[in-house]
Amino acid sequence: MAKLYLGIDLGGTQVKLAVVSAKGEILETNTFPNNAGSIPEKILGEIVAHAQRMKNFKKLAGTGIGVAGDIDQSKGVVRFSPNLTAWRNIPLRTMLQRRLPHPINIDNDANVAALGAYWLEAKGKVKNLVCVTLGTGVGGGLVCEGKLYRGTTGSAGEIGHMVLDPNGPQCNCGSRGCIERYVGAPYLSLEAQELVKGGKSKIMHKLVGGNISAITPAVIAEAANMGDTIAGNIWRQAGERLGIVLAGVINLVNPEIIVLAGGVSRAGNLILKPIKDTVNERAFRTPVRACRIIISRYDQKLGVVGAALLVK
Amino acid sequence: MAKLYLGIDLGGTQVKLAVVSAKGEILETNTFPNNAGSIPEKILGEIVAHAQRMKNFKKLAGTGIGVAGDIDQSKGVVRFSPNLTAWRNIPLRTMLQRRLPHPINIDNDANVAALGAYWLEAKGKVKNLVCVTLGTGVGGGLVCEGKLYRGTTGSAGEIGHMVLDPNGPQCNCGSRGCIERYVGAPYLSLEAQELVKGGKSKIMHKLVGGNISAITPAVIAEAANMGDTIAGNIWRQAGERLGIVLAGVINLVNPEIIVLAGGVSRAGNLILKPIKDTVNERAFRTPVRACRIIISRYDQKLGVVGAALLVK
Repeated sequence: MAKLYLGIDLGGTQVKLAVVSAKGEILETNTFPNNAGSIPEKILGEIVAHAQRMKNFKKLAGTGIGVAGDIDQSKGVVRFSPNLTAWRNIPLRTMLQRRLPHPINIDNDANVAALGAYWLEAKGKVKNLVCVTLGTGVGGGLVCEGKLYRGTTGSAGEIGHMVLDPNGPQCNCGSRGCIERYVGAPYLSLEAQELVKGGKSKIMHKLVGGNISAITPAVIAEAANMGDTIAGNIWRQAGERLGIVLAGVINLVNPEIIVLAGGVSRAGNLILKPIKDTVNERAFRTPVRACRIIISRYDQKLGVVGAALLVK
Repeated sequence: MAKLYLGIDLGGTQVKLAVVSAKGEILETNTFPNNAGSIPEKILGEIVAHAQRMKNFKKLAGTGIGVAGDIDQSKGVVRFSPNLTAWRNIPLRTMLQRRLPHPINIDNDANVAALGAYWLEAKGKVKNLVCVTLGTGVGGGLVCEGKLYRGTTGSAGEIGHMVLDPNGPQCNCGSRGCIERYVGAPYLSLEAQELVKGGKSKIMHKLVGGNISAITPAVIAEAANMGDTIAGNIWRQAGERLGIVLAGVINLVNPEIIVLAGGVSRAGNLILKPIKDTVNERAFRTPVRACRIIISRYDQKLGVVGAALLVK
């Protein structure tokens, strides 16, 4: 019988578990809210309890865990996680040893999403894939020659901190003008909020009932789809900006597919079309023609599936 | 006995041949001017004649060839070469079959330089390396997990066409503001020439005896080393600009070493120091600390050695 793996997507607000086949098919899932706050022993206890209740628990050949943050993959340690603020140098693998099926592998959310996209979107049939997670932050993961590429210190794939404009606004990372600083969800929201404050978009103003701070990328997308040109322009510009950086990624990495995932990618064609137009204009012809760019249809599943397949 | 390989660096003005060990040691070399112009049969005839005269010819276990341009590595075809202008879809491997030791592998000059740097600079002891060739154009090659990474269509590593400034000057590639457009030799030269025309640098003016169009990166470096602040600023700015792009490469690829090669890299610390300062300021701490940036000491040998080791 084909091997089965346990995948865990450990988020700050919820934890997703899934039993996954070697080809990335989900056989069983279990999702529960992370009410344990940030106390590692408590969260891990709940994870173990939920895992043990799964039908296939005894058949599992290993466990993979995805956590946002700075992960030491070789030691299985969470150095730091933005979603689990009290976590500093938590030896996750050691703490779960003997409680969950092993081997146990851990990686960051963007790498895990890339591996999930590799199996769910590309069916394991391409050699080189780039996954871009567009959420609060902009993350990325690379699959090269069919394997997750982590780089020298496990930090590869930080597409969000490639520079769009060297003289652009200060980024949290210490640099200036990083692409995350333009297309990260909070910055898109803020851009729209400023425009609405300036009276530029009645549609967005109406959609949030005048509560301007409630404007999110979802609202901007809704407005754009209702014909609001201000909202449409925000997406066009976001796509063009991301396209400039992705043209560089295409010229450097020459992937066969770029998969966009995360909340901001749900804007769909509003952001995808200007991305495609820009890379076609900017990147070298041979690699850009060989590269498909898609928005993931499996957004919510990339994390658990990729986590499970860390062990494969 | 350890295997020996023939490396050929096929340039527009000269052709270099070397017999190379599996560890990248050069045992024997032979360089001759490319007087054959651009006629493939003629150049190849001369290459074969020179190769056959080498002492170790009968001991060779294969041949590797580096050529500037667009190469189909799998078919061994030179699709196009800027240095050999009449070459279009030249089936180099087939044409050399039975005349040189096989297997015969062909790749572009930047990939070959990366492989050369991997063995000569890193002694094959790192996993991930980026090589940047700074000449008329700016090229690049990647070694990932100890192997030359070519990407999906053999186009990976085009660092020169990552964008520094989206609104920058038009680049030959069709995009705008590519880093090559700022630090490629002709653009550095032009920048200096304009400044000298404007009476800004008496030192550079004097170094070329008033013949302003003779100002090259070598002259700019000489002037900077003589204390010319205008020339020094050109290098500082070039290093900062390259540093911004390399910070992105460090965040994305997370290499253990970046090797700079090519004529423009001979400016040495004039360009290396601002590059290092900028990446330290811009890139993520963990990957930038793990990454050495050096100027190759083996500049002239990277091509032949890397070519030979294509076959390894």
